[in-house]
Amino acid sequence: MKLRFLPLLLLPLFSRAQTAQSNVDSLFIKKMSDEIMTNGTAYDLLYELTKKIGGRLAGSPQQQNAVIWGKKSLEAIGADKVFLQACKTPNWKRGGTDFAAIVGVNGVARMQPLAALALGNSLGSNGLIEAEVVAVASFDELDRRKEEVKGKIVYYHSVFDPTKIQTFKAYGESGAFRRSGASKAAKYGAVAVMIHSLSTAPDNEPHTGSMSYDEAYPKIPAVALGPDDAKMLYALAKKGTIKAQVQTYGFFLPDADENNVVAEIRGSEFPDQFITLGGHLDSWDVNEGAHDDGAGIVQTMEVLRVMKAVNYKPKRTIHFVLFANEENGVRGGNEYANQAKINKENHIFVLESDEGGFTPRSIGITASPTQLARFQTWNPLLKPYSSEITSGGGGTDIGPMLGVNKATILAGLIPDSQRYFDLHHAKTDVFENVNKRELHLGAVNMAAIIYLIDKYGVK
Amino acid sequence: MKLRFLPLLLLPLFSRAQTAQSNVDSLFIKKMSDEIMTNGTAYDLLYELTKKIGGRLAGSPQQQNAVIWGKKSLEAIGADKVFLQACKTPNWKRGGTDFAAIVGVNGVARMQPLAALALGNSLGSNGLIEAEVVAVASFDELDRRKEEVKGKIVYYHSVFDPTKIQTFKAYGESGAFRRSGASKAAKYGAVAVMIHSLSTAPDNEPHTGSMSYDEAYPKIPAVALGPDDAKMLYALAKKGTIKAQVQTYGFFLPDADENNVVAEIRGSEFPDQFITLGGHLDSWDVNEGAHDDGAGIVQTMEVLRVMKAVNYKPKRTIHFVLFANEENGVRGGNEYANQAKINKENHIFVLESDEGGFTPRSIGITASPTQLARFQTWNPLLKPYSSEITSGGGGTDIGPMLGVNKATILAGLIPDSQRYFDLHHAKTDVFENVNKRELHLGAVNMAAIIYLIDKYGVK
Repeated sequence: MKLRFLPLLLLPLFSRAQTAQSNVDSLFIKKMSDEIMTNGTAYDLLYELTKKIGGRLAGSPQQQNAVIWGKKSLEAIGADKVFLQACKTPNWKRGGTDFAAIVGVNGVARMQPLAALALGNSLGSNGLIEAEVVAVASFDELDRRKEEVKGKIVYYHSVFDPTKIQTFKAYGESGAFRRSGASKAAKYGAVAVMIHSLSTAPDNEPHTGSMSYDEAYPKIPAVALGPDDAKMLYALAKKGTIKAQVQTYGFFLPDADENNVVAEIRGSEFPDQFITLGGHLDSWDVNEGAHDDGAGIVQTMEVLRVMKAVNYKPKRTIHFVLFANEENGVRGGNEYANQAKINKENHIFVLESDEGGFTPRSIGITASPTQLARFQTWNPLLKPYSSEITSGGGGTDIGPMLGVNKATILAGLIPDSQRYFDLHHAKTDVFENVNKRELHLGAVNMAAIIYLIDKYGVK
Repeated sequence: MKLRFLPLLLLPLFSRAQTAQSNVDSLFIKKMSDEIMTNGTAYDLLYELTKKIGGRLAGSPQQQNAVIWGKKSLEAIGADKVFLQACKTPNWKRGGTDFAAIVGVNGVARMQPLAALALGNSLGSNGLIEAEVVAVASFDELDRRKEEVKGKIVYYHSVFDPTKIQTFKAYGESGAFRRSGASKAAKYGAVAVMIHSLSTAPDNEPHTGSMSYDEAYPKIPAVALGPDDAKMLYALAKKGTIKAQVQTYGFFLPDADENNVVAEIRGSEFPDQFITLGGHLDSWDVNEGAHDDGAGIVQTMEVLRVMKAVNYKPKRTIHFVLFANEENGVRGGNEYANQAKINKENHIFVLESDEGGFTPRSIGITASPTQLARFQTWNPLLKPYSSEITSGGGGTDIGPMLGVNKATILAGLIPDSQRYFDLHHAKTDVFENVNKRELHLGAVNMAAIIYLIDKYGVK
């Protein structure tokens, strides 16, 4: 069957049997697509998850409800079995309504509240902090101006680079300020930090998201400001002296007891070879986690549903996983990998959907050039569904699988990225901002690649 | 310079000069993209057009305002000259608040109003029409059941085929019921028609849109129902006898005096060769025409802006056209073609953006296979901007240009189509449903193709 993997340009030379095989795949993928685009339930399930359960940070009652809902739903769809994998997760609480304000400009008092959200994992301010603002555009500038920082609030102008067409690239760059800006400023004596929200939206919604402290320095409060307010603050700070206030309430409870939800269809031919797909069930507390990652959850469930609907019996064992905790700990993914190791499971392919429920553009696969070239012979099968196979992909939850077996192939659904960071970690990430056809089309592509991997394996 | 057009696979064989040339293009396109993604004003202009002017059907005061706004804006951006092309357009008025309701089921009275909009160009009902409903799924079914139709209201279950991944294909199919369903039913004695809105949205918004009458039959009223109501009506009609009411108020005033707005940059080397890009200024009356076609209008203006911003002096004469009337007459496009004919202009390439301001997927070009293959050697220049050149493209406004010169190459910006028919011709086609980055990325691709055509010509 090696012919199958020859480059497409050689297709005319293929045997008749090969062409017939390709037609079978094309027809089967169309059958799944038609079923999903006509009768798919991902959108309805997303409504339940977002509107009936809501925001579901690890450790919250909503996350417990989401696990119960996920298990029940996967059972109803018809998995061979559904089981939970217990894990401990961080248990961060926002603790109150975050507050930030400009209270003085060039020595003149004013009270100008700023749209603000404390960063996830950041600790509360223990009362109101009031200090002058040192506004910097980079860590280099912070280092250069370190003498000014003691006793001040550092503001990082962490705007996205709008010229990056792939918004995840801009996020990767600006994200450093959110992730580690607090301790870098605390090192020089800052009493709090504020960042420009990691946002592409032309609005004033603040975006939260994970941060962590360097244990060597004081754990100062950290907030993200709404983009409009942040730009205004930065412009004012360029011209004069700004005094600001910050008050936050974040704290940790002891680690929570959470669960991955794993649905399984046992393989008919190679039950010891595992294919996994999934997303993460947790979300931030301030929104419904509709795109992040409700979309990945319900797409995963839809792939199970369509397999049952078209009566597909996989050769290999397939796991449909709702990971317990990605946002502020990746504990769900770590536990799934841990169990795979303990059970000596042979995982050949792991796919995550965690970049939003937008129109799919590709399935990104991290594999050797030879493997990738083989996978890319399937591109004609994906093109009708707005997708193709591209190089490089994975997901935060599935990264730990490389610790089990370096040969495991990681992949990620890559949707169009233009709108993701308008909503990501902001209170606007709600059901209403998910489009039904875009969401379902993502599930079509996930079903297609899982089918192809199941049928042909990875070598 | 023919080497430039060799298939990409042969790129390694290119001369050093050729590679340098390609780098020049790549850098120049990046310069335009960076400028648009950073300082683009299309989104702000769209705000003005949608929120300050609003819905602008040909013949409305808003459309007059839009022409003034368009001319002023294009002059402010810095066209060599901006001129108007007068044309007569249809002048249809909705005339009132369209009404439809179920008033009886199996002989039992009920009053259940239905979300409804009269179809554009349809005539009013002259009072309230009450009649039984004959619900059909196709023209074939209508023909088979023609004996039942006399004195009845025909309902067409013109749902989109959800399995068509390219939604324009589904629109092309279901659109026939909107365009010609009234007269086909009137032929058999129907007193009114209702259709399922041409919509992909999981909601109940009715979508209007153009229809026309066959002069041979009575001009009966025609309404589009909201999708939820339409499905409910169809389900009821399958089981029993439905009585319904329809009242509409549509009428025509004498043709209106409208104008195309044409901005020009004179070519420096080949001023007698014309390249045109544009969209249509008019919209339906019930919405802001944000995607249809405010997006195409402001993208066109953005291409002019970026050329001025980066100081690009085109070799060929470029026309940036805001067409006066597409929705219910195509009179703007006809007049533009008419003027081109009268002035014996040599138009080499005409591009329209009228499929919404969504993430671009390709520039569709209608050209000979040889020409297309040449254009597609530019794909590596467009890929970084989420696009490529594909076969087949144009637009309703620019179609008449083929009547001037069959060799004119027509092209269209082809954005992602998943969301377009959620909004198209419904009151939800508003500014808030346009994404800034997606809109601007479309303009990047339009600027890129216009630049390449201007620089290299079409042969």
